[in-house]
Amino acid sequence: MTGGRRRSETSRLAILDAARDLLLEGGYEQLTIDAIAGRAGVGKQTIYRWWGSKGAVVADAALEGGLAQPLTPLPDTGDIETDLRRWLRAWTEHLTTAQGTGLILALTAATADDHTVADVLFERFTQPHEQLLRDRLERARGAGQLASDAPVPTIASVLIGSLLYRVLTRQAPPTVDDADLVVRLVLGGAG
Amino acid sequence: MTGGRRRSETSRLAILDAARDLLLEGGYEQLTIDAIAGRAGVGKQTIYRWWGSKGAVVADAALEGGLAQPLTPLPDTGDIETDLRRWLRAWTEHLTTAQGTGLILALTAATADDHTVADVLFERFTQPHEQLLRDRLERARGAGQLASDAPVPTIASVLIGSLLYRVLTRQAPPTVDDADLVVRLVLGGAG
Repeated sequence: MTGGRRRSETSRLAILDAARDLLLEGGYEQLTIDAIAGRAGVGKQTIYRWWGSKGAVVADAALEGGLAQPLTPLPDTGDIETDLRRWLRAWTEHLTTAQGTGLILALTAATADDHTVADVLFERFTQPHEQLLRDRLERARGAGQLASDAPVPTIASVLIGSLLYRVLTRQAPPTVDDADLVVRLVLGGAG
Repeated sequence: MTGGRRRSETSRLAILDAARDLLLEGGYEQLTIDAIAGRAGVGKQTIYRWWGSKGAVVADAALEGGLAQPLTPLPDTGDIETDLRRWLRAWTEHLTTAQGTGLILALTAATADDHTVADVLFERFTQPHEQLLRDRLERARGAGQLASDAPVPTIASVLIGSLLYRVLTRQAPPTVDDADLVVRLVLGGAG
């Protein structure tokens, strides 16, 4: 790595760290490119050279900065109801912390703001998590715990969507009891 | 109404019209307070005097400017499956038009951007629509078409959330077939 490249990488990481810290401190609405530049000790033009918008910086900061829930397979105890409950309860608890809510609001605002950012976030964050869920549902269907014609993509979108809706409206946060009700409803319809 | 008040109301409506038109032409990401002021023929300060943020203008423009789906009761044919299908198909078709997608992305970005705007949009847009859905579900439960312990709020959040998730990710748009699958899944679990 040349000296120039090393300096670039140092600046890039300083920018992502600054964006992540500011996001956690004040949320997406308070975040400005000016503030990120000031905190990172770089010029605004350095940020604009690498990222097209505030949303694009936020997406990278969330994905590289460890804000997003790590991509771990769903538990497989052999019982789909137990496993879906654990998974949806864990996501409910994550997304209703201050950090988790801030993260999902920021990623949603970035997605709504910018179509390119939307594609990157889907490919690197949303889709891999949805795929893990679909994989576990496919195994349950193969094991006869779901009907042979159970619509796996629909079930996945229902489990994710009901939680997302409750978080995004910014009203009463969803609870683990809500998670259990959603799982029971879905498995009642797919069993 | 005094001359001053009349001028104020004229400016207010010009600002909301400009915001609505710019939103339909270029989407939320392109929209700026500068552009709204230019189109409406007012100074930026006039906008900032009445609205705290871009999100707040957009919320009012969507709610007063006829962009949002009108609040009409769900059909009641006496058959809950027929009625939910019609309702979810209509929303799916609305939210996958260019105007409908633009609207929901703008309202979501505004909600994620600003907590005050989130509360206003929930109270004036989201909650009334969710209440109509809950009312219809309650009647179906009373008529014995849903189990007596069917969790009406959960069913409502699942129906709305699955559609919202598919629209917000900005990937393949949901179809009326997806709507039918969601309704069948939910009624299978709640019947």
